[in-house]
Amino acid sequence: MSPHALNVFIVHAHPEPTSFNAALRSTAVHTLESLGHRVAVSDLYAMHFNPVVSRGDFTTVHNPDRFNVTLEQRHAVAHGGLAADIAEELAKLQRADLLILQFPLWWFGLPAILKGWIDRVFLSGVVYNRTSLYEQGKLKGKRAMACVTTGGPAGAFGPDSLNGDIRDILAPLHRGVLAFTGMTVLPPFVNYHVPYEGEASRLAMLARYRSHLVRFDTLEALPMPKMADHLAQFKETIRAKAQ
Amino acid sequence: MSPHALNVFIVHAHPEPTSFNAALRSTAVHTLESLGHRVAVSDLYAMHFNPVVSRGDFTTVHNPDRFNVTLEQRHAVAHGGLAADIAEELAKLQRADLLILQFPLWWFGLPAILKGWIDRVFLSGVVYNRTSLYEQGKLKGKRAMACVTTGGPAGAFGPDSLNGDIRDILAPLHRGVLAFTGMTVLPPFVNYHVPYEGEASRLAMLARYRSHLVRFDTLEALPMPKMADHLAQFKETIRAKAQ
Repeated sequence: MSPHALNVFIVHAHPEPTSFNAALRSTAVHTLESLGHRVAVSDLYAMHFNPVVSRGDFTTVHNPDRFNVTLEQRHAVAHGGLAADIAEELAKLQRADLLILQFPLWWFGLPAILKGWIDRVFLSGVVYNRTSLYEQGKLKGKRAMACVTTGGPAGAFGPDSLNGDIRDILAPLHRGVLAFTGMTVLPPFVNYHVPYEGEASRLAMLARYRSHLVRFDTLEALPMPKMADHLAQFKETIRAKAQ
Repeated sequence: MSPHALNVFIVHAHPEPTSFNAALRSTAVHTLESLGHRVAVSDLYAMHFNPVVSRGDFTTVHNPDRFNVTLEQRHAVAHGGLAADIAEELAKLQRADLLILQFPLWWFGLPAILKGWIDRVFLSGVVYNRTSLYEQGKLKGKRAMACVTTGGPAGAFGPDSLNGDIRDILAPLHRGVLAFTGMTVLPPFVNYHVPYEGEASRLAMLARYRSHLVRFDTLEALPMPKMADHLAQFKETIRAKAQ
């Protein structure tokens, strides 16, 4: 293992084991392992991962009368009350130096099984708290990257295009999940028009993905807001509301 | 029933029956029924709605060797092969003149149970097809509106704020789901900082929501792209890719 070996964690969300998403996932595993990194994979469909936040997320109960997700999360974290599946995913997330989310773009967003992985595993008090957001988020030091497939062609996802810029479509994930918790967000690797592409085009996509991964260390991170730049406004709002 | 009576369909996604989201839902039911409209509600948590797209969505099989979601959806629609829970939700959606999505903003997006309701119920060939998008989408004539709660204060969701404009955060839903399928998108009703507000503030939010609903017929729709304005670019891209 090289001294620069990283822990990579790929969270994979596609129902078909022979899908192009699976080929991208395997490409990432082989490429990153061949560079000397350790790679863990959570294949959410294969794991039958449950994406629905509920009281079943916890073995502890903070308030039996009213289920407040955030408060139950914080209580469970403080009292060792996380369900086993959440604890396992959280451990993998905390070990990771680089998180890769592998998914098809469904309805301009994440497949529900992946959205629910975030809803359940990104626990309040562990990955953020009210004063630890963005550059102060608790996952700082980690990098994150989305690898996405779309049905629509590239031309439908550019600036001023029919669907709008793919960066805007991915912004809630990039900004509101990854940067929000302190992670450095790498440029996404987007594969367009996948269902309508032939073998040669798909192989070219995999080759481009290999190149993207080999140089991921040199990719310029996406610009993200800093809490420090908004602190005055943020505090003022909280104060105004509290009166 | 008034001659202007509409079919309203509220899809509700919160795990706690006494939550503020539930109060917003009830406010909508009572307000809209008192105006003479018919209101149907899908309470996804109460229904234990399954949000995970899988072969279980269909009683038919198009390709047993490779699960392509879009192709299986189209085949199931053509052959009466939809699972009962999907068929029921689709029937409610198709009857609706006004769709209201009621949810807490989790990680800048929908709770997984609601994202999966869209993933499973918004079937290819039924709500859109490759040439029926946006103003030509198959749900045209329907109106849709999000009613959202946030933990963060309003000041953290304005233009140039820490989290960015709430309209940008909701854009994948507004543009990529609701407008994409032809629906007219009404301005969202956003309730900020909900967990930290007292009783008086919450009651004021419910009163404002009532006013919003009473005049929903007069609300100006959000501007959305039109397929007609992008058709040349879209066709060109498809043609270029096909060569």
